[in-house]
Amino acid sequence: MSGDSTINPGSCPIPIEKYPHIVMAHGGGGRLTRQLINDMFRSAFSNDLLERDHDSAVINVESGSIAFTTDSFVIHPLFFPGGDIGELAVYGTVNDLSMSGAIPKYISLGLILEEGFAIETLWQIISSIKLASEKCGVSIVTGDTKVVEHGKCDGIYINTTGIGFVPDGLTISPASIKPGDAILLSGDIGRHGISVMAKREGLEFETDLESDCAPLHQAVKALINANLDIHCMRDLTRGGLAAALIELAETSNYSIEINEESIPVCDPVRGACELLGFDPKYVANEGRFIIILPKEQQEKALSILKTIPVSSNTVPIGKTLNTKTSQVVLLNAYGSRRILQLFSGEQLPRIC
Amino acid sequence: MSGDSTINPGSCPIPIEKYPHIVMAHGGGGRLTRQLINDMFRSAFSNDLLERDHDSAVINVESGSIAFTTDSFVIHPLFFPGGDIGELAVYGTVNDLSMSGAIPKYISLGLILEEGFAIETLWQIISSIKLASEKCGVSIVTGDTKVVEHGKCDGIYINTTGIGFVPDGLTISPASIKPGDAILLSGDIGRHGISVMAKREGLEFETDLESDCAPLHQAVKALINANLDIHCMRDLTRGGLAAALIELAETSNYSIEINEESIPVCDPVRGACELLGFDPKYVANEGRFIIILPKEQQEKALSILKTIPVSSNTVPIGKTLNTKTSQVVLLNAYGSRRILQLFSGEQLPRIC
Repeated sequence: MSGDSTINPGSCPIPIEKYPHIVMAHGGGGRLTRQLINDMFRSAFSNDLLERDHDSAVINVESGSIAFTTDSFVIHPLFFPGGDIGELAVYGTVNDLSMSGAIPKYISLGLILEEGFAIETLWQIISSIKLASEKCGVSIVTGDTKVVEHGKCDGIYINTTGIGFVPDGLTISPASIKPGDAILLSGDIGRHGISVMAKREGLEFETDLESDCAPLHQAVKALINANLDIHCMRDLTRGGLAAALIELAETSNYSIEINEESIPVCDPVRGACELLGFDPKYVANEGRFIIILPKEQQEKALSILKTIPVSSNTVPIGKTLNTKTSQVVLLNAYGSRRILQLFSGEQLPRIC
Repeated sequence: MSGDSTINPGSCPIPIEKYPHIVMAHGGGGRLTRQLINDMFRSAFSNDLLERDHDSAVINVESGSIAFTTDSFVIHPLFFPGGDIGELAVYGTVNDLSMSGAIPKYISLGLILEEGFAIETLWQIISSIKLASEKCGVSIVTGDTKVVEHGKCDGIYINTTGIGFVPDGLTISPASIKPGDAILLSGDIGRHGISVMAKREGLEFETDLESDCAPLHQAVKALINANLDIHCMRDLTRGGLAAALIELAETSNYSIEINEESIPVCDPVRGACELLGFDPKYVANEGRFIIILPKEQQEKALSILKTIPVSSNTVPIGKTLNTKTSQVVLLNAYGSRRILQLFSGEQLPRIC
């Protein structure tokens, strides 16, 4: 993981003395567009499919199931403690694919750049995308670059769309959820949202708080290789744990019961949330997920997840119920029960 | 095709008296995000894959080749004579897939919306995407919506990423180009760029000039069904005919010879280009393509393309040469020869 000071992208392949900034012509389809594509993108992401220089990447597939997902990234600031927009754009799509049990494989990269954006910063982000995609075993096989006038975007917006291959026989989806399933949470919540907000607002914490921004494909792979009967998984992004649970209760048509005290929250996140009036259950994460599977497989899943760094602090947090009310019920230590509600609004804008 | 006055989207499924504009919370993952997704997007694009409400769409595939392509759309204005950003976003990706010979099938939709954008205009664009995707036989199977602060984008930016299935045995690509191949152009050039610019700048033409914005999948399908040995195809977008020819010469490593007089340009485009100092060969199109195939199949291809409305004015414009200089040579009626150069810059920004 890398903040603004830790990326070492090597030398930018475009001479930045001569071309310091993105200009409108970089999006015009002419010589400067070709320079950006050939000298920067193609050299960073070099692979056979990209080399063919065609309107589409043509990919060989075996018969079976593929997963297909898209995400745009408009995070502000572009660099934050524990990550940057580049790795976030790769991990976000890798994680969405992983949640279907798919092995992430191919990614498309759509860039919208603002006139005046520094070429060196673009190279830093492209380098970060390169490293992140290597880490996840995915290839950037097709892309598109647009440039808009100064003031018409905020530096850079990134879309990544991914394709992964779903191993035979897997049907990991909200429709597979059964009553009595155990619900596991892969680690403490709220780090991403709070660290991005802290950087944006200039808040200081006593300890270094970093985003949880990370790829989840290894943890998912370990679960699948162990032949666990995973019913559903969901990564916790915008809207946090709360939105994920509420959506799954609604889609599966089963209620969910959560032991509120079992949800891990680290001290800096808890402190910031208390100070600012946030509920950590609604704060965004970028490297946490929940796993829903038969109760009798809970211990085996926990023992596997604890061996993987990204999920080493996985805990059980609740279960699905045999009631069709589609509610998420929070239990606290005193036995009180309340229904978790979806916020209408947004606590923290542009955290992904 | 539809300009701002011709779309009749039916009644907006979100009550616009109560929710007239996009607010930041529409991108926050909470209740307003769910309302937008469920009431507007899901109702418009209803299909089995979208209904599953999972992070990825899971698609069954047969063994073979798939084509994968991405495009972002930042066109200004959003509505222009002959089209709008919604249909452009569908046709653009359908056309990129078609250029590999693929049958377009699945599309992802990534929206970046500006705070304050009118919900009714969004519905108009979503309705246009729905109509365009039905026309092309593609399904919107997964999506993502982000909202940025007022002033941080220009109303709406759209990314579409597409998957298509390539029929067995096809290898349509720049690498398949051979010396002596015929080059056909599917119609007159420059309509899209000039009509968008005219709308933007408030120019008036004596005749109604409309964008050529259209899907090319039917024309491609007809060529493939006729078992023609198509070597390569390329749709003419940013950079126009010139950029497409120069890129293909560079990638194939063969030079190309074009008879300049054979390139059709309609009177309003020619007039506007003369007035403004543009060369129509560099002006963007969104419904034109070139076809490269063996010379002996030229007449058969022409007879097929002329039966399809979108390519009814197809003409031969030149051939590939057996020289490795990778140049595009323009011949005129007086026998003079000049080399076509890639512009460094951009004549018309944000035309797609």
